[in-house]
Amino acid sequence: MIRFTVEKRDGNSRAGIIETPHGAVPTPTFMPVGTKGSVKGVLPQQLREAGVGIVLGNTYHLFLRPGHELVRETFGSLHRMIGWDGPILTDSGGFQVFSLGPLRKITEEGVEFRSHLDGSKQFLSPERSIEIQEALGADILMAFDECPALPCSDDEMVASMERTTRWESRCLDARKGDAALFGIVQGGVSESLRRKHLAEIAALNFDGYALGGLSVGEAKEDMYRTVATIAPLMPDDRPRYLMGVGTPRDLVTAILSGIDMFDCVMPTRNARNGQLFTRSGTMNIKNKEFERDTRPIDERCSCLTCRSFARAYLNHLYRNGEILAAVLNSIHNIHYYLDLTATMRRLILEGRAAEGIGLVAAYDR
Amino acid sequence: MIRFTVEKRDGNSRAGIIETPHGAVPTPTFMPVGTKGSVKGVLPQQLREAGVGIVLGNTYHLFLRPGHELVRETFGSLHRMIGWDGPILTDSGGFQVFSLGPLRKITEEGVEFRSHLDGSKQFLSPERSIEIQEALGADILMAFDECPALPCSDDEMVASMERTTRWESRCLDARKGDAALFGIVQGGVSESLRRKHLAEIAALNFDGYALGGLSVGEAKEDMYRTVATIAPLMPDDRPRYLMGVGTPRDLVTAILSGIDMFDCVMPTRNARNGQLFTRSGTMNIKNKEFERDTRPIDERCSCLTCRSFARAYLNHLYRNGEILAAVLNSIHNIHYYLDLTATMRRLILEGRAAEGIGLVAAYDR
Repeated sequence: MIRFTVEKRDGNSRAGIIETPHGAVPTPTFMPVGTKGSVKGVLPQQLREAGVGIVLGNTYHLFLRPGHELVRETFGSLHRMIGWDGPILTDSGGFQVFSLGPLRKITEEGVEFRSHLDGSKQFLSPERSIEIQEALGADILMAFDECPALPCSDDEMVASMERTTRWESRCLDARKGDAALFGIVQGGVSESLRRKHLAEIAALNFDGYALGGLSVGEAKEDMYRTVATIAPLMPDDRPRYLMGVGTPRDLVTAILSGIDMFDCVMPTRNARNGQLFTRSGTMNIKNKEFERDTRPIDERCSCLTCRSFARAYLNHLYRNGEILAAVLNSIHNIHYYLDLTATMRRLILEGRAAEGIGLVAAYDR
Repeated sequence: MIRFTVEKRDGNSRAGIIETPHGAVPTPTFMPVGTKGSVKGVLPQQLREAGVGIVLGNTYHLFLRPGHELVRETFGSLHRMIGWDGPILTDSGGFQVFSLGPLRKITEEGVEFRSHLDGSKQFLSPERSIEIQEALGADILMAFDECPALPCSDDEMVASMERTTRWESRCLDARKGDAALFGIVQGGVSESLRRKHLAEIAALNFDGYALGGLSVGEAKEDMYRTVATIAPLMPDDRPRYLMGVGTPRDLVTAILSGIDMFDCVMPTRNARNGQLFTRSGTMNIKNKEFERDTRPIDERCSCLTCRSFARAYLNHLYRNGEILAAVLNSIHNIHYYLDLTATMRRLILEGRAAEGIGLVAAYDR
């Protein structure tokens, strides 16, 4: 189980702490994505040094390889497998499965799909998802929800939300252990549908609540408006998690609306493509302008990469396809994201949360 | 300049120390290859922790990208560029250029070649090679020699050796700074030619001596015999370096013949292909037998990888193409190589060098 305490509020923002069996995590926080049991290119110790408190694991990928039973039987938990002794949150696998498109078939029972690895027939359901997540030993499990393809009509959305509510209720029934379980609120970008679904899900009494189905292609303004409207209505005494988000500005904006937790592949994926985050905006390290630039990526950054290496070297590594380019860029970007959430936390504690938007002034909405 | 001291002899083996402007290196030692200014996947601090004392940089690659002038003007030295404050040895670029085959043209002046990157026409000569290596700021420079394609007749070999002697002499004349400069002995696998060339090169008075042109396709027995015969004849008060070698057994055998230094891509390249070195022989981590194996690669190994991760996790990382597979496998293999040379050093200091062969009993000749 987890315990969540709000230490300080400033407007809708909250500075809190999530206590888990694997340690406490100050919030707001960002969770790097360790899809297949590894935050790509970054060692657990380097995650710690970058300020990471909790890591996300993908149920879909780990279910297919190496398999949750192997993780449990061989290692006891995903933590021991990957050498990360901090807390882990696993997603439900639903989002990936629904992204398979024609390879999957949805029924009330669950989702039948074909593995993207070998085409084998597989099945995920609320019960199966919880079983897998519990086998992985996650500290926080996510409920198995339906992610409707957008655009869809209000009727379709309502039908999907109703199924999601039934599925999430089954997740609560399926839970055998004492891991925390978060419910997910759907409803697209309609305020009324979001309110309706939030009421249904909140009534089920989860340990935390997430906003799903955002940052999936809708207009940025729609996402911001939805978060701003719905986040403050989410149960005040539970962590609030905005799934799959986002850019630095997305994070600050959502924190100001009352969100506590985030995950996104952006810092690591963009790092591997040479895009670095700084207080002055993004920087594409492969650009010729950095070829002789002896400055660190960001002179105000204290990450391993910025302490040790110049832009010119990172430019050289990237242009030559060196493994260290991915490693060093990822370490920096993760540090940037964690520094951003830690700075927002400090501002909230000081009652200056609104100033946070200045941290991302270089980033367009 | 460097200073070399032999601390202890045992048979033909020597335990010594090379003092350089960037620190002292106990010998025998192994130099990981940082081809393009990065030992692939491994951070400088991780090299240190694995026991690395000196790193090799490739003149050919660094000359083409980012260019030696850029390194000097932007960073001052290769050390500062790559964040490695220990000593660096650079090769002459000759071996890579000669490997280009039809893309290069040899004259007495030097070698004209086309870059493998963009086809541009380039030129390397003894003078140019030394200029580049000095611009990179290496602690130890290697003389520019000709590497004759094998098989070749004795007459061709002699002609090549004579040119190499002239070229190496030009290298000594070209040196402007106070970096150490090592001469290279050629002569194939003919004892008489090797002796002849060694006499010529030793007379030029280099700061150290290398055996080149071995491990290039000749029979292993020929290489062992050549090293066993020639290494003991190389100047006793200078470091002896066997270039581009080799397997664990190659190292131990050559150390017993009196070699002090080695370099090879084997530990890092094989690591990226999933082949790991252990006292019990090589292990291919992708094999199914390791899928549920909770032991470290080598229970007697103290590297970061073995301290932190199980074979089953490394198997999972490799099979999924994760960057951390290359990182963790490389850290282990480099540690294995440095542990092997450090153990040989200890055995020599204890007068038990001959027992060293037991360290590599699992490796065939």
